[in-house]
Amino acid sequence: MPPVQARGLDRFRAVRSRTEELAAPLSAEDQTVQSMPDASPTKWHLAHTTWFFETFVLRPHASGYRPFDPAFEYLFNSYYEAVGPRHPRPQRGMITRPGAEQVLNYRRYVTGAMLDFLTHDRRCDELVELGLNHEQQHQELILMDIKHALSVNPLRPAYRAATPRAVLVPQAVAWREFEGGLVEVGHGGHGFAFDNEGPRHRTWLDAFAIAMRPVTCGEYLAFMEDGGYRRAEFWLSAGWECVNSRGWEAPLYWENKDGAWHVFTLSGLEPVDPSRSVCHVSAFEAAAFAKWAGKRLPREAEWETAAGVLQGSGEVWEWTASPYVAYPGYREPPGAIGEYNGKFMASQMVLRGGCSATPEGHVRPTYRNFFPPDARWMFGGIRLAEDLR
Amino acid sequence: MPPVQARGLDRFRAVRSRTEELAAPLSAEDQTVQSMPDASPTKWHLAHTTWFFETFVLRPHASGYRPFDPAFEYLFNSYYEAVGPRHPRPQRGMITRPGAEQVLNYRRYVTGAMLDFLTHDRRCDELVELGLNHEQQHQELILMDIKHALSVNPLRPAYRAATPRAVLVPQAVAWREFEGGLVEVGHGGHGFAFDNEGPRHRTWLDAFAIAMRPVTCGEYLAFMEDGGYRRAEFWLSAGWECVNSRGWEAPLYWENKDGAWHVFTLSGLEPVDPSRSVCHVSAFEAAAFAKWAGKRLPREAEWETAAGVLQGSGEVWEWTASPYVAYPGYREPPGAIGEYNGKFMASQMVLRGGCSATPEGHVRPTYRNFFPPDARWMFGGIRLAEDLR
Amino acid sequence: MPPVQARGLDRFRAVRSRTEELAAPLSAEDQTVQSMPDASPTKWHLAHTTWFFETFVLRPHASGYRPFDPAFEYLFNSYYEAVGPRHPRPQRGMITRPGAEQVLNYRRYVTGAMLDFLTHDRRCDELVELGLNHEQQHQELILMDIKHALSVNPLRPAYRAATPRAVLVPQAVAWREFEGGLVEVGHGGHGFAFDNEGPRHRTWLDAFAIAMRPVTCGEYLAFMEDGGYRRAEFWLSAGWECVNSRGWEAPLYWENKDGAWHVFTLSGLEPVDPSRSVCHVSAFEAAAFAKWAGKRLPREAEWETAAGVLQGSGEVWEWTASPYVAYPGYREPPGAIGEYNGKFMASQMVLRGGCSATPEGHVRPTYRNFFPPDARWMFGGIRLAEDLR
Amino acid sequence: MPPVQARGLDRFRAVRSRTEELAAPLSAEDQTVQSMPDASPTKWHLAHTTWFFETFVLRPHASGYRPFDPAFEYLFNSYYEAVGPRHPRPQRGMITRPGAEQVLNYRRYVTGAMLDFLTHDRRCDELVELGLNHEQQHQELILMDIKHALSVNPLRPAYRAATPRAVLVPQAVAWREFEGGLVEVGHGGHGFAFDNEGPRHRTWLDAFAIAMRPVTCGEYLAFMEDGGYRRAEFWLSAGWECVNSRGWEAPLYWENKDGAWHVFTLSGLEPVDPSRSVCHVSAFEAAAFAKWAGKRLPREAEWETAAGVLQGSGEVWEWTASPYVAYPGYREPPGAIGEYNGKFMASQMVLRGGCSATPEGHVRPTYRNFFPPDARWMFGGIRLAEDLR
Repeated sequence: MPPVQARGLDRFRAVRSRTEELAAPLSAEDQTVQSMPDASPTKWHLAHTTWFFETFVLRPHASGYRPFDPAFEYLFNSYYEAVGPRHPRPQRGMITRPGAEQVLNYRRYVTGAMLDFLTHDRRCDELVELGLNHEQQHQELILMDIKHALSVNPLRPAYRAATPRAVLVPQAVAWREFEGGLVEVGHGGHGFAFDNEGPRHRTWLDAFAIAMRPVTCGEYLAFMEDGGYRRAEFWLSAGWECVNSRGWEAPLYWENKDGAWHVFTLSGLEPVDPSRSVCHVSAFEAAAFAKWAGKRLPREAEWETAAGVLQGSGEVWEWTASPYVAYPGYREPPGAIGEYNGKFMASQMVLRGGCSATPEGHVRPTYRNFFPPDARWMFGGIRLAEDLR
Repeated sequence: MPPVQARGLDRFRAVRSRTEELAAPLSAEDQTVQSMPDASPTKWHLAHTTWFFETFVLRPHASGYRPFDPAFEYLFNSYYEAVGPRHPRPQRGMITRPGAEQVLNYRRYVTGAMLDFLTHDRRCDELVELGLNHEQQHQELILMDIKHALSVNPLRPAYRAATPRAVLVPQAVAWREFEGGLVEVGHGGHGFAFDNEGPRHRTWLDAFAIAMRPVTCGEYLAFMEDGGYRRAEFWLSAGWECVNSRGWEAPLYWENKDGAWHVFTLSGLEPVDPSRSVCHVSAFEAAAFAKWAGKRLPREAEWETAAGVLQGSGEVWEWTASPYVAYPGYREPPGAIGEYNGKFMASQMVLRGGCSATPEGHVRPTYRNFFPPDARWMFGGIRLAEDLR
Repeated sequence: MPPVQARGLDRFRAVRSRTEELAAPLSAEDQTVQSMPDASPTKWHLAHTTWFFETFVLRPHASGYRPFDPAFEYLFNSYYEAVGPRHPRPQRGMITRPGAEQVLNYRRYVTGAMLDFLTHDRRCDELVELGLNHEQQHQELILMDIKHALSVNPLRPAYRAATPRAVLVPQAVAWREFEGGLVEVGHGGHGFAFDNEGPRHRTWLDAFAIAMRPVTCGEYLAFMEDGGYRRAEFWLSAGWECVNSRGWEAPLYWENKDGAWHVFTLSGLEPVDPSRSVCHVSAFEAAAFAKWAGKRLPREAEWETAAGVLQGSGEVWEWTASPYVAYPGYREPPGAIGEYNGKFMASQMVLRGGCSATPEGHVRPTYRNFFPPDARWMFGGIRLAEDLR
Repeated sequence: MPPVQARGLDRFRAVRSRTEELAAPLSAEDQTVQSMPDASPTKWHLAHTTWFFETFVLRPHASGYRPFDPAFEYLFNSYYEAVGPRHPRPQRGMITRPGAEQVLNYRRYVTGAMLDFLTHDRRCDELVELGLNHEQQHQELILMDIKHALSVNPLRPAYRAATPRAVLVPQAVAWREFEGGLVEVGHGGHGFAFDNEGPRHRTWLDAFAIAMRPVTCGEYLAFMEDGGYRRAEFWLSAGWECVNSRGWEAPLYWENKDGAWHVFTLSGLEPVDPSRSVCHVSAFEAAAFAKWAGKRLPREAEWETAAGVLQGSGEVWEWTASPYVAYPGYREPPGAIGEYNGKFMASQMVLRGGCSATPEGHVRPTYRNFFPPDARWMFGGIRLAEDLR
């Protein structure tokens, strides 16, 4: 077995193990619930990432492969119309069987079959790489979703123990200027990227400046204290409607206890730290903050152009001003895999960067994350930009 | 310790154990989910019946009692406004912690404290008897609710193994006639009864006849085959609206597979047995069937008057034509316990008899079960009556 | 032509004219809107009462009758399944054509055809009498519904000018006691009655007392000031849910302006007069008030037994404690007319008496009005009763 | 008075009159209803366009001006938060008073005051021009909205008589190729434009081709007959959800009668003409059609670059692939007028061109119309584009 392949097997094992490590602190009960239609049970994530390899690699390509349980094709399909019917997304939390233990058996069965397959068959290497990146996306989703699930429990239970963190001294934000001009963006080189990151293409940028670090909780508190959630003038119309119909008055997970703002974290409730990057805001809140500050959000091509020098990138996903649309020349791949990204290019906004829950090695300057502008449960923050003219 | 008290302790232990036996076949995952707002997780039933004793007996009456967990007062209150705020009912399935094991610990702790208390203090005996009857009601609810939860799983998993049942030869229904006149109904004698069963009072009945057994699945199939779910003429207006907006075309849990009707049971999917009593119909379906048959549903005073001679009583709860209202002279007891029954006397119908999931010794001829007329997940069936004139 | 028939024609003309008089103060715009699904446009009431005579008398019985417009059979059917499909109730306010003028033409056409028919054909006299009583019910509905429609206009426009009313001195309520026993209730004699008022039948009443007049606004204000809308202890569970989810804090149409309660009337906004009967309360509010007062609502058989001596009857419909169910021995008439009353016998409560908007001559001691317990837009008030024992 | 101002007054009179001409064929009833929350009553459009001049010109700038009715400030504000509270949009159809006649009085009063003002005061000329363009937008909305309102009437009444149209011979579509490169788009010159059309700015285009005419009904029928509405592969995920949850199977207003497709028009129901441009499709349907055809929708900068040579432009608004976002360097104007366009830049798509209901002289190559991607009641059609590489 050549070393390159051994590295591939190691990577496969490592990614698969990492998913299970993330689930390990959770009880069978924790892994079962679905706290809102957009979120999924941990157990479902564990099964669906396994379903991906079973459906796209083992069933069509591994001769003699016997599916672990034929019913799982239906149960753990997320949204692939081309694969066939599927269990309705809002009903994922109703599936008590298979239980957490059985899902682990499913994982072991498929991981074993995959390792067998990969030792002698390299035809699917690209697909496997996609599956591993897919699984890494779900590793982040596991943390996003379980955070939400635990947050609706009035006991505010913790996923993990708190770790002591250095106290930071808040600092004024520095800005960096860019001349713009005709630039190239998008993935074009070697190495893995999702289809929606390409093709690499030219685009025109006017001169702009971009903040060197994301907006902090302290800065966001100033916006709140200046009536940010009560003054329509800062908000997009659809955002203002959210503020009023959903009663937004702070980022998601913030609670005011006896006059002091706290935030629910994976380690339970903590006081808000003004020096940390603000997180769990929607694109609407990000845009309102920017307008209040007299700035704007960066466009994604600006962000990508500046990516090399930005600081704090990777703490929170950074909302951009760019709707999630196809790059010039983009075509979905044929078949079910073509449903991975392309069909979601409507009414969503691009986020860039990565966050503390993103697996190591999973981010790139060209990476395009996307969510609807009212979504708050992913780890979304704010970076400011402005025109230079 | 007097023998009577020993019997009391034995009964306390027996009822408490029975609840745990009902939960024993269920995994932690099974016990966590809430498949619709009207249903509750098994785990919640186990905790709430324990909360009842802690809240109404131990906290106010057992000197030096330390609650197992102060947060449970909020978490496991069902609907007692006088006790204080409570976790919203539709959110019961979001509580993953305490888990099933911790809820059992809660049960053991409270059962122990109760047994201590009951050996030396008899002041609360009436309240304890209410608590045991309350727990028996929840034993039936556990089965109703888990049946629904398992039914929404496309795998149709079973709660328990099927037991072989004798094949019955369908028989024509016999009828019994009653002269009516001025009768007395309601609980008036010794022994436990819920407040809503009294006071015993006089009422006038015209002459009537009542069927000796409940309607069978075979008879109900004849209604279905005669267009029962497509002919508005048989239906109350609100029932017809349910048929159309919810797509009713058979009792709950019935599925047509390749032209043959099957029914989901606690032992999984089984062919419909025409000789068994039809079950899981709403009051609307019961009334429509009766109208199709040229009969009517019995009033609850008729049912109670005839109770001594009825056959098949106890298989399925039998919908009556009587809305659930207070008997003449009824007064709720003072305090939180007064919320047990009285405040639900609106827009519900009375069912009589008991069903296969009802704990032994929990039914009486005066027992008044009640549900909204569109409810189908409890074990509701049909008995016919008619006027004699 | 015999005098009796002349009287019949006069009555027909008079009822038909009265309906048009009620609509006369309203603009075409007023007559078009539907302010909630339960209410209907004035224009629809004018057309539907006409449809009744066209559908049930002229089409089947008047030889050579040509319908005014064949499309109206669909457009103006209210709820008669046996007649065929119909325009959805919540969409009645979307029908701008035929307009108000065309609907008057429709009325004139059908009234003319009916008068022709009635002069020479007496076969349908019973049906015609039903149609006239039906039209009188809609006369009251026109006022109920337009009151609601005008109330949602922030200008609070008036249907008619206010008339000066005598100032009344509030008086303590007197009570009358009844022995009860075996009584007869329900319509059994001569003269018109709806099918649901019969058959006359025996029922048993325990001794009771009943208030001689309805509850006044002043008395209801005392309930409000004593926290009536904030104290769960007075409320049925479903009522308390309404209080909270709909934000009830006073009867419908009451507005607090600068600390003083006002009420929207058909003559616009007026100060609440404490000596008048409270109106536009739901059955839930009526029951909560009664519980607060330490009394209860009368059962409908009690009300009917006492009807001869009650004062203030006819000002507001009086909620009873009785759900709307069939009397013993009740059978719907055959055919579409059988849908008039019987199919609504579910989840509604009986009101007795009549109100200021009820046409003269349209009430009887046996009259059973019915509405869901949360309905407030009809003219519903409160009379108290209590047990004597 | 200089001629230029006389022309201004003539234009003011002409635009105002045109609005009233559009309403003239409609009855008071027609003008009152609101058939869905997105649409508004004709009467409301007539009043709101008047409110615009009263609120932004007369109240602040015409000394001594007395508002026609102070309540109208609240009643006819559309969405300007800075102006103050307003009547809820979904309740616009509940306002029967002021009636249609009174709204015309309001119009005459304000038109008169404006003409007085404009003869001697030129300070507001820019604002007045905005008001006239605003009123022209509402002229199109009047037709869009009344078409929808009449369409929900099962009688399918016509707004105007049908005019005979030439029968066209369907022709194959021609394509025009563009080299792309660094282009300038957006409004930058003289003459009126909305704020969202600027600033003029550079952008990069890859080479593309664009169809010379919009897609016809005949071409769209081919898509339908090829299973367009049943094959998920053509659809964006959010579009496929619409197809299924709303039951889309043809453009809005299409009805299949006895196997032949008809379309509801402002002149009533007509057979679908295969040679006409398809209309009343959503952006989702436009994108699905394009994918089925192996093409794509044009980006708005492509459309604008090609605008000079396109044929058929102005028949139907043409969906682009571009989300509605701010151009580089865009800033809302200060004050309430700043709410005109900017705050809607979220989750909407740009349409270009204009349609048969657009007032003459109201379109420009830089004009950016915008609607949510699921909207179908405006006159939206399809033009195809493709990459050249």
